[in-house]
Amino acid sequence: MNSQPTASSPAANDAANPAAIVLLSGGLDSTTCLAIAQQQGYRVHCLSFRYGQRHQYELQRAENIARQFQVASHQVVDIDLAQFGGSALTDQNLIVPKHDTADEIGAEIPITYVPARNTVFLSLALAMAETHAANDVFIGVNALDYSGYPDCRSEYIQAFQTMANLATKQGVQGEKLTIHTPLIDLTKAEIIAKGLSLGVDYAMTLSCYDPLPPGVPCGHCDACLLRNRGFAENSIHDPSVQ
Amino acid sequence: MNSQPTASSPAANDAANPAAIVLLSGGLDSTTCLAIAQQQGYRVHCLSFRYGQRHQYELQRAENIARQFQVASHQVVDIDLAQFGGSALTDQNLIVPKHDTADEIGAEIPITYVPARNTVFLSLALAMAETHAANDVFIGVNALDYSGYPDCRSEYIQAFQTMANLATKQGVQGEKLTIHTPLIDLTKAEIIAKGLSLGVDYAMTLSCYDPLPPGVPCGHCDACLLRNRGFAENSIHDPSVQ
Repeated sequence: MNSQPTASSPAANDAANPAAIVLLSGGLDSTTCLAIAQQQGYRVHCLSFRYGQRHQYELQRAENIARQFQVASHQVVDIDLAQFGGSALTDQNLIVPKHDTADEIGAEIPITYVPARNTVFLSLALAMAETHAANDVFIGVNALDYSGYPDCRSEYIQAFQTMANLATKQGVQGEKLTIHTPLIDLTKAEIIAKGLSLGVDYAMTLSCYDPLPPGVPCGHCDACLLRNRGFAENSIHDPSVQ
Repeated sequence: MNSQPTASSPAANDAANPAAIVLLSGGLDSTTCLAIAQQQGYRVHCLSFRYGQRHQYELQRAENIARQFQVASHQVVDIDLAQFGGSALTDQNLIVPKHDTADEIGAEIPITYVPARNTVFLSLALAMAETHAANDVFIGVNALDYSGYPDCRSEYIQAFQTMANLATKQGVQGEKLTIHTPLIDLTKAEIIAKGLSLGVDYAMTLSCYDPLPPGVPCGHCDACLLRNRGFAENSIHDPSVQ
C-alpha cells in the first residue's frame, strides 16, 4: 500500500492491491472516506443503498462520484427500510427538523435517525467483503457531528468488528476484517480540509436530508447546517451551492 | 409471561404481552422457534426474507404458518443477496450438494453457506425490533447440525447481541435487547420433539434447499437429510413427505 494515487487515479485499482469495500452515500463524508481509502492504496468496491430515503438524489451523485474515482466496482442495493418506519428520513409523514444555524442542533437522538441503519449497511458490506475477499470496510461515520446517533460511535464500530470476525467464513479461516472509520474524530471542517488535500470535488456531493428537485440542498436541515459550517470554518465557498 | 397458549392460540397477542421479533423462514427450525416464543408469552412479529434463495417456496409456507399461529404481524422483506453471489443457495450456477445419508455431510463450511446471511437478517430484525419497541429477537440457529456455518455459533450470537445493544436508540436509552436461540444446543430430533409437544404441524414446513415445483423436498440435500434423520430418531413419519 505504497501508492499515493490522486482521488481520481485508477492506480489503486491494480489487482495486486488489497480490496476494500467503501460505503458511499454520495455525501461529503463518504466521498472523503472513498478518497482516503484510495490514497491508502486500496482497490475500492463501493456500496450504496436505495433504502427508501427521501434524499434519493444522493444516489445519482454516488454513481457520478464512483465513476470519477474510477473505482473497481459500484453496487447499489435495494433495501426498503421505510417499511419499518420510525424515521423522518424514510417516512414522508414525518418532518425533517430545520434550524437557522448549526448551533441550534440538539444532542438528543434526532428523528432523522434510521433504526439500525448503519448495522444493516455494514452487514451488507460484510456480505460484499466476503465475496470480494476483502478484509477492509470503510465507513464515513463521525462521532462529533452525529453525537446523537448511537451507531456512529467508536464503541459501536468496535463491537461490530468483533461480531463480524465471528460471523464469516473469512473470520473462521483466520482472516481479520477491519472496519475503518477515518473520519470518526474529525470535525466537519477537518474532513473538508482532508478531502480537498486529496483532490475531492465537493461540487459532486449532496449532503441534504430534504433536497428539492433535482437535488438542491434545503440549507436548513442538520446535514446542510453542519456542512455549511464546515466550509465556513475553512473560509471557502461550498462548490455545490450556486 | 405466565400464559401458556398453544401454538395456534392468539392469547399471546394480547397487547399487554411483550413484543418479540421471530425470524421465520418457513422451515422446521424457525417454526419451532415461533412456537416457543408464543409459548413463552410473547406477542410475535414475524420477519421473513425474499433474498434470492432458490427455495422461495419456503416463503409461502412462512405465510401459511404465520397465519396459522395468528401472529401479531408478518413482514416479508426483499433483499437480494444473490447479487453478491458466493453461495449455492442463491447462485443457480452452483450445485447444491446431495448425499445419500446425513452421515456423509462434512464438517467444513458448505457451499450452501450464504455470506453474512444471519448478520443481515438479524440486522433487519434489529430495525424491526426498534420500531415495534421489542426487546427480544428469536432466531432458530442450531450449532449441532450447522457446525460448519460460522453464524450459527453461540459466540457469534453473543457478539451480535453486544453490538446490537450499542447500535440502537433503545440500547442507548437503557433497554436491553436479547437474541434468543432456543434451539442452539438441540439435536434435530430434540427440536422436532419440542415442536410436537407445542402442537407444531410440521406438514406446513419446508426445509429443502433445492425443492422441485411446487415445493417438493429433494430428499438428498443437507437440510432434507438432517430433517429426515430427526424424524427417524423420533420414530415418526415426516408429515410433509407424501
